[in-house]
Order: sequence, then C-alpha cells, then structure tokens
Amino acid sequence: MRIIGIDPGTSVTGIGVIEILNGSVKLIHFGNVTLNSKDHMTVRLKRIYDECLECIKKYKPQELAIETAFYSKNIQSTLKLGQARGVAIIAGLNSEINISEYSPREIKKSVTGNGASSKDQVMYMVSSILNLKKQKIPVDSSDALAIAICHSFNLQSVIVPSSKSSVKNSWKSFLEKNPQRILT
Amino acid sequence: MRIIGIDPGTSVTGIGVIEILNGSVKLIHFGNVTLNSKDHMTVRLKRIYDECLECIKKYKPQELAIETAFYSKNIQSTLKLGQARGVAIIAGLNSEINISEYSPREIKKSVTGNGASSKDQVMYMVSSILNLKKQKIPVDSSDALAIAICHSFNLQSVIVPSSKSSVKNSWKSFLEKNPQRILT
Repeated sequence: MRIIGIDPGTSVTGIGVIEILNGSVKLIHFGNVTLNSKDHMTVRLKRIYDECLECIKKYKPQELAIETAFYSKNIQSTLKLGQARGVAIIAGLNSEINISEYSPREIKKSVTGNGASSKDQVMYMVSSILNLKKQKIPVDSSDALAIAICHSFNLQSVIVPSSKSSVKNSWKSFLEKNPQRILT
Repeated sequence: MRIIGIDPGTSVTGIGVIEILNGSVKLIHFGNVTLNSKDHMTVRLKRIYDECLECIKKYKPQELAIETAFYSKNIQSTLKLGQARGVAIIAGLNSEINISEYSPREIKKSVTGNGASSKDQVMYMVSSILNLKKQKIPVDSSDALAIAICHSFNLQSVIVPSSKSSVKNSWKSFLEKNPQRILT
C-alpha cells in the first residue's frame, strides 16, 4: 500500500510518498513545491493542486494523509493555509483516494514518541525510519513524510487484532509491531 | 458575457450566475449549496467543488468572482472558510475561467453605494438591479449575486474610455453608464 503525505503551505508545500511492504515502510518519493510569493494566490493554489494531482497520478497512492490544522496566530496566514489545505484535499478527493487527517501533536508523537518534539527531531526520525542515511531531505518534505509515516503506523495498528487501548499503552507491543522504529 | 459569483462557506455556499447583455445585467441562476454540519469536512469540500463545477459546466460563465476574504474572529472558522474558498477557486481554475476577487466593502459599495450596508440592503439592491420583484432570493445566493454584479460593474467601467478617477468621482457619468441601477 502506498501513502502520500502532504504538508500544505502557500510558500512551500511538502509532498512525500511511502510504501508499506511486509510491515516495513519504504521511501518512494519526496519533493518540495516552492511557490513564488510574487505570484497571485490563485496561481499558487493551482500549482499546489496540479503538483499534488501529478504525484497521485505518478505514484498511485491509495491513501492521502494531511495535518488537521495548524492554527497560526496570524489570521491571514490561517486563511491562506486553509486555502492550500482545501486544494490539496480536493486533489485527493478528485483522484478518489481516502483522506486521513492527523494533528501536529499526533504526527510528532507517532514518529518520535514525543508530541512536542522539534522539526529536527522529526527529520532525524523520518530519516531513521526510512533508512535514509546519506540523503538530505528538505524540512517540508520531511514533515510530509512524517504525516505519511504517522498514517502508516495508524493503519498497521488498526489491523492488529487487540483492543486499541492496549496497543496504545504498551510500548513492548508497539515496538514488536514496529521493529523498524528501534534505532540500532 | 456570463459571470458566476460565489459566496463560499462550509455551512452554506451561495452561487449566482448573471449575464451582461447590451449594458444591462440579467439573472441566469441562483442557488444555495446547504451543507450538513454532521458531514466530515472533506465531504463538504467535495460537495462545494462538485456543485461549483456543475454550475460552471451548465451555465458556461467566462468569469468567476469571489470575496477576497472575510476574517472571522474565530480562527477555526477562518481556516474552514479558507478551505471552502480554495476549493471554489480551484473549480474555476480547473474550468479555465478568469478569477477576480473583491473585498466585502468593495462589493457592498458597488451594489448599494455604501461599503458598510447591511445584508438586507444588499439583498434589496440585488433584487432591484436584476429586476426580481416577486422572486425571493436566499441571503447567501443574494451575496453571491452581489459579488457577480460588482464584477460586472467593474468590467463595464474598465471598457469606458475615460480616466478611472473621473469615472469613480462622477455620479452623473456612473448613472449614465448604469441606468439599471436607478430605482423607479
């Protein structure tokens, strides 16, 4: 199964595609859509839509994962972010793939074990999980991959035939189900 | 020339289509897309996209007009509105029609002559301009029609071969160019 993670933004939109195969997670693609701040917002929105759609057509993910929302203190930034999110979601819906949303805290906790971790910590864990020792990943792509990884862990835990609470509360069972997350 | 005006919202999205013919403005279509608050946001966004796209396909407007932004005090509402706006804009861009944006103040001033007018005043003037004496228009459709009317006045004033400032400052020339706005 393939998952596309999208970290939408009107300056940079991060895109990451991963594949779950035999319980492990593999990198398929990552990229940043860098947008020109001098371009009108409609031009930028169209570019986000087109790039997301192109990635979906090319890598054929069955699932799309996106952050629920980042509530900026700046209301204008929030409105712009809303537009970018709407456009990315529509690219997924028009391709008839499932959309899942996770809060920033859920994503960080899922990837690093700590809901308040820094961007650097997320980046480090994304590289470790995807076994990218030498490859440098831009921060927005790393965030997009983190969203996709969070969704992959969630999908895998859903398959586990035990109660959700016990899965959530047991580190031992979590590590047994996610051996790739143990740093060696 | 046909213009579609969209008043986006995640509770109700208003849509209005008008036609400019021989200097006068005529109603083609109006409608409210009423969304179920129990539906997930992605379902609502897809419905807004599909309804806007269907209207564009059916009535074939050459121009799409939308409000620049309404900055709500509630940041969550602003994010939702941003998503709905992004989706409506993408429906227009994917249909390759021009997108124009107007602030709420510009729209009100253009339709009623007063940038701070109430929704009722806008509704009254929309009915007068479109000569809808008996037809009751829902408030969101009326707002959408007001956006389209604002754009039609703007397009018509662009064609006028005189300086923009003189057009703006002269009521006499404005009424000469927009005889349908004189209430009889």
